[in-house]
Amino acid sequence: MTPRSETPSEFLRVHYDLQCGPGERPEEKARQIAQEQTVELPEGRFSAALAAEVVGRVEELVPLGASDLGQWSATVAYAPEVTGWELPQFLNLLFGNISLKAGIRVRAIDWPPSFLARFRGPRFGSDGLRGLCGLLEPRPLVCAALKPMGLSASELAGLCRRFALGGADVVKDDHGLADQAWAPFRERVERCQEAVAAANAQSGGATLYFPNLTAPHEELEKRIEAAQSAGCRGGLIAPLLVGVDAVRALSESSELALLGHPALSGAFFTPGHGIAPEVLLGEIFRLAGCDGVIYPNAGGRFPFAEQTCAAINVRLRRPLRDLRPAMPVPAGGMDVARVSHWIEVYGPDIMVLIGGSLYEEADLTAATRALVARVRGAIPA
Amino acid sequence: MTPRSETPSEFLRVHYDLQCGPGERPEEKARQIAQEQTVELPEGRFSAALAAEVVGRVEELVPLGASDLGQWSATVAYAPEVTGWELPQFLNLLFGNISLKAGIRVRAIDWPPSFLARFRGPRFGSDGLRGLCGLLEPRPLVCAALKPMGLSASELAGLCRRFALGGADVVKDDHGLADQAWAPFRERVERCQEAVAAANAQSGGATLYFPNLTAPHEELEKRIEAAQSAGCRGGLIAPLLVGVDAVRALSESSELALLGHPALSGAFFTPGHGIAPEVLLGEIFRLAGCDGVIYPNAGGRFPFAEQTCAAINVRLRRPLRDLRPAMPVPAGGMDVARVSHWIEVYGPDIMVLIGGSLYEEADLTAATRALVARVRGAIPA
Repeated sequence: MTPRSETPSEFLRVHYDLQCGPGERPEEKARQIAQEQTVELPEGRFSAALAAEVVGRVEELVPLGASDLGQWSATVAYAPEVTGWELPQFLNLLFGNISLKAGIRVRAIDWPPSFLARFRGPRFGSDGLRGLCGLLEPRPLVCAALKPMGLSASELAGLCRRFALGGADVVKDDHGLADQAWAPFRERVERCQEAVAAANAQSGGATLYFPNLTAPHEELEKRIEAAQSAGCRGGLIAPLLVGVDAVRALSESSELALLGHPALSGAFFTPGHGIAPEVLLGEIFRLAGCDGVIYPNAGGRFPFAEQTCAAINVRLRRPLRDLRPAMPVPAGGMDVARVSHWIEVYGPDIMVLIGGSLYEEADLTAATRALVARVRGAIPA
Repeated sequence: MTPRSETPSEFLRVHYDLQCGPGERPEEKARQIAQEQTVELPEGRFSAALAAEVVGRVEELVPLGASDLGQWSATVAYAPEVTGWELPQFLNLLFGNISLKAGIRVRAIDWPPSFLARFRGPRFGSDGLRGLCGLLEPRPLVCAALKPMGLSASELAGLCRRFALGGADVVKDDHGLADQAWAPFRERVERCQEAVAAANAQSGGATLYFPNLTAPHEELEKRIEAAQSAGCRGGLIAPLLVGVDAVRALSESSELALLGHPALSGAFFTPGHGIAPEVLLGEIFRLAGCDGVIYPNAGGRFPFAEQTCAAINVRLRRPLRDLRPAMPVPAGGMDVARVSHWIEVYGPDIMVLIGGSLYEEADLTAATRALVARVRGAIPA
């Protein structure tokens, strides 16, 4: 358990929280992880030379709290070459087979520069999103959501118009809007984009419409092309519904800004086994090219703690080689009345995504205008 | 909570196990699921007409055990139109946002024929895999795994030769073999396929080599083409690493048989929150077109119970409209010595995947030959 080499930054270090059951020895559990995620063979079935090159090495093993709790922190250093510099194999290395075990949680990753250098990350990032919206003031962006599923494309376009006239920076599809017959994708994108453009022309505003790009494999590029042709500058996508690496590819090949949606990600967030939200949403989604990342804010209708949200924000924003910072997008029951509080806690460099709460008002334009004023007012002059 | 219509088979029914925390009312939890997964708005913010068409309806709510345990079974009927007949949106409907809540487990799904009709499922299925291997006897298929990562393409080809001469039906890449420099994909596929073909020519056997097709988004089709050009008839793919719908698309567009690998799926299998293994591996992987599905067998190095494995087998095999049955592939520490036992328990229509256990023997050809004899001997004449 000595450090693996004298150039420690060259390794991909994964920090795990381990929960050892009765009779489970932490040294063995950590070593099994290192083997399971690489050679899938126990010791003695491969050469020492191969082990030195390929097998993860347990570098640190520290009890968390009283030793009889069975909780340990383990650090395993992997050669980044094991990833083949590919995101699917990286995800496999990180949690592929050990997902099928119990009591293993990825708490943090130390990223080697050699690995980060292979990924462009966000095309726009936080500043780029701000630029797309033409926002010069240092205030949070304001995003409204089109809902509910079941409305027609024209009805959704009517909502777009009202949000845009109210001054929302972005109006996004609800992430359940796909290509259902009620509002087929292409018709919806054209109607909504037209409505936003017309409202902008009338008001002098610069609202953007972001359609939901989450789609079947063969449709992904086609829907992105349709959105770009209609004049959209960004869209919404759920990495775990389409594949994390599909988002990376689409971020590279399209010219759209991408908001990452956390659908399905909660499977990884159960206590004691999985991947920490700040790693999956805060780092992996960013690495995959999300310019903004939506997460369920504390105090909303999902059980995320404020410190988890803060940790996601830190990971989205912190220096990570050449990767642009991505914008935190707290959502999931964000209440208009509490917006000032969250801006104070998270700072101005966020996108405030207000869904259902805006719909409580009869006049959506006025409600949006009041929200934007509230957001502006929350920033000290 | 009355049945939604007189044609009950027209609905997509999801059966959830709910764990209610203190103060959480099961009626409300079930109703919130039905809303969260469709309109993402609470009642009163959408019309009754829209609700009837779009919102899931709670049809049944039954306590599991003593009422003070807070455990309930809930059934919600969704209009299949909500899926837009697309797999990513189906996954979103099934567990997208509620993954971010707690105490919700998808236990079972009743599939409406209208939904199943949109999916072809396995191209080959269980019988087709048997046919590809030219296997006329009613015995399980025998699969060996190439490992460890770190060997060169030539070394892996040497293993292929030995497994093929021993009479393995299939030799597959370990799922961590991607495109690493030790054995780059194209070189590996050519060397291994050549080795298997040469061994077949020598022995009169019909061993198939299945490379790992799990790859970056832009590479998926290219690697499949390379595998097909080299003469491969099937491959390995991990749906959760590349996206479940990518597998569906590749199953439709390629002519390869696909073995689905469960990497990352364990995130969904924590107790009390997630998707039951028999639903995710047994039904969704099959729906996506996996001809065989690998799962961690009971008694191996993963904590799967025998009844879970049996339930996966049932779902892979049971009649499901026009979908072909897929072949169960128990793995993950399957021991040569226990093979007869598992064949007795699971029946002959499985693929026995033996990884590390074969490598305990110095002579891989002899060990494979002994394994095949043991498998053959386990079937009553």
